[in-house]
Amino acid sequence: MTQPAIYLDNNATTRVFPEVVAAMLPYFTEHFGNASSGHGFGAQAGLGLRKARLAVAALIGAASEQEILFTSGGTEANTTAIRSALAVQDGRREIIISAVEHPAILMLAADLEKTEGVRVHRIPVDHLGRLDLAAYRAALSDRVAVASIMWANNETGTIFPVPQLAAEAHAAGALFHTDAVQAVGKLPMSLADTEIDMLSLSGHKFHGPKGVGALYLRKGVAFRPLLRGGKQERGRRAGTENVPALVGMGLAAEIVAARMAADLSRIATLRDWLESGILALGGCQRLGDPANRLANTCTLAFDRIDSEAVLTKLARAGIAISTGSACASGAMEPSHVTRAMAVPFTAAHGVVRFSLSADTTAAELSRVLAILPEILAELRPVPVTA
Amino acid sequence: MTQPAIYLDNNATTRVFPEVVAAMLPYFTEHFGNASSGHGFGAQAGLGLRKARLAVAALIGAASEQEILFTSGGTEANTTAIRSALAVQDGRREIIISAVEHPAILMLAADLEKTEGVRVHRIPVDHLGRLDLAAYRAALSDRVAVASIMWANNETGTIFPVPQLAAEAHAAGALFHTDAVQAVGKLPMSLADTEIDMLSLSGHKFHGPKGVGALYLRKGVAFRPLLRGGKQERGRRAGTENVPALVGMGLAAEIVAARMAADLSRIATLRDWLESGILALGGCQRLGDPANRLANTCTLAFDRIDSEAVLTKLARAGIAISTGSACASGAMEPSHVTRAMAVPFTAAHGVVRFSLSADTTAAELSRVLAILPEILAELRPVPVTA
Repeated sequence: MTQPAIYLDNNATTRVFPEVVAAMLPYFTEHFGNASSGHGFGAQAGLGLRKARLAVAALIGAASEQEILFTSGGTEANTTAIRSALAVQDGRREIIISAVEHPAILMLAADLEKTEGVRVHRIPVDHLGRLDLAAYRAALSDRVAVASIMWANNETGTIFPVPQLAAEAHAAGALFHTDAVQAVGKLPMSLADTEIDMLSLSGHKFHGPKGVGALYLRKGVAFRPLLRGGKQERGRRAGTENVPALVGMGLAAEIVAARMAADLSRIATLRDWLESGILALGGCQRLGDPANRLANTCTLAFDRIDSEAVLTKLARAGIAISTGSACASGAMEPSHVTRAMAVPFTAAHGVVRFSLSADTTAAELSRVLAILPEILAELRPVPVTA
Repeated sequence: MTQPAIYLDNNATTRVFPEVVAAMLPYFTEHFGNASSGHGFGAQAGLGLRKARLAVAALIGAASEQEILFTSGGTEANTTAIRSALAVQDGRREIIISAVEHPAILMLAADLEKTEGVRVHRIPVDHLGRLDLAAYRAALSDRVAVASIMWANNETGTIFPVPQLAAEAHAAGALFHTDAVQAVGKLPMSLADTEIDMLSLSGHKFHGPKGVGALYLRKGVAFRPLLRGGKQERGRRAGTENVPALVGMGLAAEIVAARMAADLSRIATLRDWLESGILALGGCQRLGDPANRLANTCTLAFDRIDSEAVLTKLARAGIAISTGSACASGAMEPSHVTRAMAVPFTAAHGVVRFSLSADTTAAELSRVLAILPEILAELRPVPVTA
């Protein structure tokens, strides 16, 4: 397989901005000290960390940078948040999630259910991927430790009304966490103006490096660490700080925040153009909530098409897309999101996701629109005529 | 505080080899795909991971690269190992550790003791930092889930006989784990020839990047993941793979393995020269077991000296050292290792660690030997004479 030249799989991961790589470099070989050390090498690393923490706090509108707890990524942040919420509230042994969460939440919930007797409420979505609010409200009670609902869905881009969901969770005395790995950097947000208690984010989803993320932990929310040991992150997450990557994530946060309004508008225009072009070919439907979704995501279900074959043919043509969550790939079954939305049987195996980024150009999308009709024609069974 | 030019704090962290940084670079902006993705970007990332896994397996002498499970570092690997050992052996609710483990093990053990009723045996060390083997044997029983004893101590470099300890743990039906964060890359090891079940390592301790490490998990050992979600690491550790950093750790492992014999001999010679020069000044004693310790570590206890003042004065002169574990710094009390070794009261506040690396030169150590006498003279109280 040749190296694709057109990358439209930005919900899986993004290219690190070159200026982010440049900012990281001195921390590998020059300011390489342990940020916990008492000498100059350590002090310089510590300064880099502080700047990164401020930038991440600003990107999500946290009230203070002390609400940012660095982690190794989204999965660790999610695991830390849910386990903490259960640990700090002895009497509450239920959690609420949506049926379309990322596997990091789904698998954790299933594990807690199986090994620790936690009751898990899985809130369904409708055919547009919208959360069943009545079911959410019905699940809330004084037995619920935490409601964890993703901010935006990775497969369809559908945005859930998390500020509202957080307020409703609080009314029931429950904590509220959101897996915002797909939303951070793709939506303006101001956490200080919401009742969200915890939020997970991942640097590599917004042009920062892999291997770093953060847990937003609202000031005053009771907390129990997942990783104990050294006193890093004010005793809330042990382990030598990944200074170069955290500096990189900080700069990516700064860049994305500064450009967000302009980028999102441009990306949405490109996405809409791509999407209307493909829809005009016929034989496919759009997935997700058109009124509330990420600007960069275009997910389509093709009738009577094997999406894995589309992926392979596009990859041969140098175009990288996804047939669903990268984490669930390998399995040829419709994803849990496709199933939860009750996509019709004839299209459930034909779900293709194009996810754009600030790097995406109109020329790249033109190429997709030029090549896709012939790929679909090759793959579709010839209609039987008399 | 100016940037120190002489770095002798390599047990805290090491400078990333420049060739390691160079190897990482393409994975940030070119082969940046998600290793789980089905297109070319993902495939190239996957190839990088596979090579890194082989290199890490070779560095520690694992029987197969499938025994290597990548993590975000040593603390995560340690936490995963101990929690897994308890989870997979229902009837065994005791663990054995040494009194001089890294805080990642000590704090975890204290937490398990407090919140989960696990009984923790803390095996003492003697004045040379050697493990009390009789106490270790006495603690082993059919109630012990795992014995976790570090391979080499971070503060003194003392090496514990972990292959022997592993065999004895097995004789009692317990699993054996070793925190080898300070040993990997500084000692030849061949895990396939031992009975060690699990081993933790960290990339940044051997000139790889921060934020990545590994858990060695012997084939056939029952296991329970700490982080669940995506199917990465064959379902044993979820989360998008940190491809650039893992590629970097892999190359660092290759380089260190190839040079180990020559490097260790040279480093030991330099260390012995530094140590004998300082010991000749008088008023200090060597800490650790001279017969069994890392080649790169020189830890000394100065009589009637505040080690933090030594650190500060050396840092002003451009020399970076440590007064103990970096993770425990900030606290001005003798470290748990110093206390465990019963260092005499008058010297317990004067423990200074010089830790060398392959980068260390004789000229750098000459500078230390030139400047240290005047620093000590400034800091020591003037003797009262008649």
